[in-house]
Amino acid sequence: MTPYDPSLPARMRVVEVGPRDGLQNLSAPVPTAAKIALIDRLSPLGFDRIEAVAFVSPRAVPQMADAAAVMAGIRRHPAARYVALVPNRMGTARSLDAGVDMLNFVCSATESFNQANLNQSIDASLAALAESMPLAQAAGVPMRLTLSTSFGCPYEGYVDPARVLDIARRAADLGCDEICLGDTTGMANPRQVYHLFERLIATLPDVTPAVHLHNTRGSGAANLIAALQAGVTVFDSSLGGLGGCPYAPGATGNVASEDMVHMLHEMDVETGVDLHGLIKVARDFERTLGQTLPGQVMRAGEAYAFSCRLPHAAKVGS
Amino acid sequence: MTPYDPSLPARMRVVEVGPRDGLQNLSAPVPTAAKIALIDRLSPLGFDRIEAVAFVSPRAVPQMADAAAVMAGIRRHPAARYVALVPNRMGTARSLDAGVDMLNFVCSATESFNQANLNQSIDASLAALAESMPLAQAAGVPMRLTLSTSFGCPYEGYVDPARVLDIARRAADLGCDEICLGDTTGMANPRQVYHLFERLIATLPDVTPAVHLHNTRGSGAANLIAALQAGVTVFDSSLGGLGGCPYAPGATGNVASEDMVHMLHEMDVETGVDLHGLIKVARDFERTLGQTLPGQVMRAGEAYAFSCRLPHAAKVGS
Repeated sequence: MTPYDPSLPARMRVVEVGPRDGLQNLSAPVPTAAKIALIDRLSPLGFDRIEAVAFVSPRAVPQMADAAAVMAGIRRHPAARYVALVPNRMGTARSLDAGVDMLNFVCSATESFNQANLNQSIDASLAALAESMPLAQAAGVPMRLTLSTSFGCPYEGYVDPARVLDIARRAADLGCDEICLGDTTGMANPRQVYHLFERLIATLPDVTPAVHLHNTRGSGAANLIAALQAGVTVFDSSLGGLGGCPYAPGATGNVASEDMVHMLHEMDVETGVDLHGLIKVARDFERTLGQTLPGQVMRAGEAYAFSCRLPHAAKVGS
Repeated sequence: MTPYDPSLPARMRVVEVGPRDGLQNLSAPVPTAAKIALIDRLSPLGFDRIEAVAFVSPRAVPQMADAAAVMAGIRRHPAARYVALVPNRMGTARSLDAGVDMLNFVCSATESFNQANLNQSIDASLAALAESMPLAQAAGVPMRLTLSTSFGCPYEGYVDPARVLDIARRAADLGCDEICLGDTTGMANPRQVYHLFERLIATLPDVTPAVHLHNTRGSGAANLIAALQAGVTVFDSSLGGLGGCPYAPGATGNVASEDMVHMLHEMDVETGVDLHGLIKVARDFERTLGQTLPGQVMRAGEAYAFSCRLPHAAKVGS
């Protein structure tokens, strides 16, 4: 098997997390109407899902305090699925009341980060997941677990893969059918991403593996390809790379949806996303925010927009 | 062979091209003294080479008009090698007069780009390479060929690999012992990079392959890893990602040296570059320029600077 042999997955599914992870990390909250307008423009673009909101403590995360209003205000597109991030049973219940299509339960792979982020231990988070699962199952709503700081933790440094795999297994036993490994602060490298997913897939072959990457140190695109090479076919990204870290000016947030979709399409890995439409939305939203976003394709344009795009067989010269 | 098996090269050599490719693409020329100061700070950092200047038409490229003064002004570090980019015999002669350690002859893989960039045909460029080679050989100075637009061309679109391989073979026949494929306008994708280098290496096994990447569309890091996976062990990059395209504000230039070095070191691919020192130089030069550079690590800091960095065996969990 070479790195780009025919066994490379031919398709990746994209979870647009800009409205949640992107907007949550801005210093000033975005008005509810602007959030709804953004989600309504993203809805028809072919994403697998849109992470629209988080049902979390409005004191801790004021940017998400209007989650119920956002969910009530959007025009639901028949082909779109809307996800809420939740950290506990109350968030799960509120999400189900708001009619989400999928839940994204968050927990960290390190105790320090879970304490800082959610003010509780990993065991307490998993207990909350256990309490939340019956609600989700009764509503027929699938539950994913996102394990933040799965690769590196700003408090604890390098994260032991055995710890990640142990939490993933416990979540799978509780009924999660998708496990997402998050590089929350952009500390992962491609080799590490490849090997950790190789082990996750070998350990839990019946669970869908997903990846959530930040481009904080410029390796987001390489980490995405490493995940793809390991067999991961679901990833999170945000339009324009929205969501820079407030305490590191200029540092980017999530990998940019349109940059990743552009790269994958050029490789003939399809996503179903309307790239051209997405670029327009990213450009318009940059104007709405009044700040420059880190996305590159929205500035440079599509590589072959002005010329021919040859079929794969010729393009890779195989 | 998996994408990250033990056959992955354990070392990459870095060519710092910021003083040439970076500064050449700024709208305002940088004063000669500032160029000299920058090169002097880069010299002890462990780069394989520093592309310090270009000996080209001062009318066409006013930013490089002071090339001889820069070469005369720098403090030559015993462990550093200084390179000049040249497009013809006159540039070669002037470079040798200035005492460069290596020549980087530039030619494009597409006729349109070569005309736009150098005002001559590819055949004329190769004839100029043939005229230049005896001068270089007489001086004992190695000559590399950089083939710009080897993947995509802004005028012609996708570039046929057969054309790239043909020019590379002719340059090798003329005596070039290193061939660099350039993604001049950031149009390459990882799969294409992997396959083109796979063919180059198979076609010219005695030539050193090198890669020159721009991050114009956010796939630079992924393209670098694809080149590494194909067996490429020499790459160009610029401190801070210096060198954005003047007509696409916010679009980045070369891949950022410190971001690529950081990623490679985290993967246990060594470069010999003093990352910590390089970050300081990039931060200081950002202040000198008075503009924000696209590099990420210079803003976010090294991933494990504040915590432990575990040995490879543990880090990748293999």
